[in-house]
Amino acid sequence: MTDFIKQARLGVQGLAPYQPGKPVDELQRELGLTRVVKLASNENPLGPSPKALAALQLALANPLELGRYPDGSGFRLKQAIANKFGCALEAITLGNGSNDLLDIIARVFLGEGDEAIYSQYAFAVYPLSVQAVGATGVCVPARDYGHDLVAMAEAITTKTKVIFLANPNNPTGTWFSEADFHALMTRVPAHVIVVLDEAYGEFVSDASALNGLAQLGRYANLIVTRTLAKAYGLASLRVGYGVASAELSGLLNRVRQPFNVNSLALIAAEAAITDEAFVQQTRALNDAGMSQWLAATQALGLSCLPSRGNFLCVDMAAEAMPIFQALLREGVIVRPVGAYGLPNHLRISIGTEEENSFAINALARVLNQQVDG
Amino acid sequence: MTDFIKQARLGVQGLAPYQPGKPVDELQRELGLTRVVKLASNENPLGPSPKALAALQLALANPLELGRYPDGSGFRLKQAIANKFGCALEAITLGNGSNDLLDIIARVFLGEGDEAIYSQYAFAVYPLSVQAVGATGVCVPARDYGHDLVAMAEAITTKTKVIFLANPNNPTGTWFSEADFHALMTRVPAHVIVVLDEAYGEFVSDASALNGLAQLGRYANLIVTRTLAKAYGLASLRVGYGVASAELSGLLNRVRQPFNVNSLALIAAEAAITDEAFVQQTRALNDAGMSQWLAATQALGLSCLPSRGNFLCVDMAAEAMPIFQALLREGVIVRPVGAYGLPNHLRISIGTEEENSFAINALARVLNQQVDG
Repeated sequence: MTDFIKQARLGVQGLAPYQPGKPVDELQRELGLTRVVKLASNENPLGPSPKALAALQLALANPLELGRYPDGSGFRLKQAIANKFGCALEAITLGNGSNDLLDIIARVFLGEGDEAIYSQYAFAVYPLSVQAVGATGVCVPARDYGHDLVAMAEAITTKTKVIFLANPNNPTGTWFSEADFHALMTRVPAHVIVVLDEAYGEFVSDASALNGLAQLGRYANLIVTRTLAKAYGLASLRVGYGVASAELSGLLNRVRQPFNVNSLALIAAEAAITDEAFVQQTRALNDAGMSQWLAATQALGLSCLPSRGNFLCVDMAAEAMPIFQALLREGVIVRPVGAYGLPNHLRISIGTEEENSFAINALARVLNQQVDG
Repeated sequence: MTDFIKQARLGVQGLAPYQPGKPVDELQRELGLTRVVKLASNENPLGPSPKALAALQLALANPLELGRYPDGSGFRLKQAIANKFGCALEAITLGNGSNDLLDIIARVFLGEGDEAIYSQYAFAVYPLSVQAVGATGVCVPARDYGHDLVAMAEAITTKTKVIFLANPNNPTGTWFSEADFHALMTRVPAHVIVVLDEAYGEFVSDASALNGLAQLGRYANLIVTRTLAKAYGLASLRVGYGVASAELSGLLNRVRQPFNVNSLALIAAEAAITDEAFVQQTRALNDAGMSQWLAATQALGLSCLPSRGNFLCVDMAAEAMPIFQALLREGVIVRPVGAYGLPNHLRISIGTEEENSFAINALARVLNQQVDG
């Protein structure tokens, strides 16, 4: 009998098989819970942009069109993105979520013998995408849980092909300044691709914060990735985009599957990307919820990593898994981050005020029980 | 200035950049057409399964859920597929269209120095997926425009890792028998992966035709791929699936992006896969339309490749591109297949009776003009 794993590429042999989670409603049934509050995936508690929802309703009124393939070029969505940011259509690559873009970048530029640099505690898809193509991931120790851009510059070798940066980073929420970014970029050789992942960029309200799109004219080796999953509330639909020079985008589009973003995703995203009022509402809700959580965790004697995302990485000052399990039984789903090397932290997404209160009360009960027990 | 193409993987350097097409409505505006009949992408002229449409309507009534990530395991859709075909959940891999599965298979098993075998005139994604990972595509000359399975067996070398088979094949519509398939499989080494692409399998009404799913117990190296784009009418939503041993599926799922099929696609597919009445209606419409086209092309003095798909590959007995262009001006979009090495053929998807009549009349006018002109 053939052992097929030996037939797989070396990189794939080293990949951990994907562990599917259970749907929320199954968990609800299993634990007999009347209510579940999910603050586990940094989703938008408001749901999708109403403009996106209206566009979807309209699309269903024309069912014959749903039997047709998507527009493989994503022409209208790219036009909406180009209008919003003043970039060229040719600068844009659409992705089935920004995960797709990260995978595409790895496939275009990385192979066995190549190195890709990312930070300790950085988003888990970077090492996965790098491993899947058999390249070597170089994980640079974090500084105060955030990217150490000086150490990352020092980690560059002749084998380095790609550097992944997350700003703000998931799951820590940490960020770096525009000055530190420029200091890094001056040390990056011109042929090394720098990926600046701004999945949480819309949650940053500081006007002086680094804006990747504004840097594209200055750095020909820069690719900025963004998503509609978070601030635009389209996590269910999987739409991300990359912006770079036309040359780099052309390379990414060679590997992109021609219909990687489906029709309803294109339609919803085209409407959502123009819905600045919704993003403002989302940001305001997030700012208020962040304050609510910071006050609550402080009152509970817990510290949080500083965060500019729509989530907080909370130091439980104890092994976090039992607290995660106890919260589950209270009907609150958060995200353990032990796999990130943060066994004492839980990542908690910011919800609505009411969801936050529900979860904060549950957390207070759980921590009390831990002390009592 | 850096020439970034030199930084790309060798395979990617050889890929042709994707050429986006224009949306139909733009073409309509440009040519000032009152009506466009699109018979170009082998879509279902009935649109999506009504069960799928009803499920989508229901999903939009719960907008908060649309702000959530899809179920990464696709649990319910896999359960529906497993129920329908009597296979294990672990045997199934979901894809963002079957294109995604073909790409995943290439990424798992193929790299530089490896060979993948496919037939001349076979589906264009096989060479693209193979090229993208830098492997060597071995294109075996067709026999009567169909797969020459004997010659494909003879093409196997020690470097062969994957064999792609399409049954029926797109764009030719040709097929092979179960006996010929077994004869091939007995000559394929046990470690070589055989991909049997049955994207058009639901259109085959011959009960004695090869059914890949029934062969999985016999061949541990077999992966069967199917799609909901065609018979189920979900081209817009991008859902395909692969069925294989749990071991092979486990390998594919390592490389699959966890949320590769979006929520609305999962919901629609779960409903559609149970809609056998719709598939029967689709097949009946296709059979009638096929007869309509065969009679019409014969009356026009044109011959067609024998087809078991939802399309016909018509020999125009002349250079096909001018005829394609003339049909466009008549408001009929079909598919030129010169890129497949078939410069005299046009691939025409079977539409509704009325769409077929519209296109047949246009074709008759165009051919008359060609004779006159």
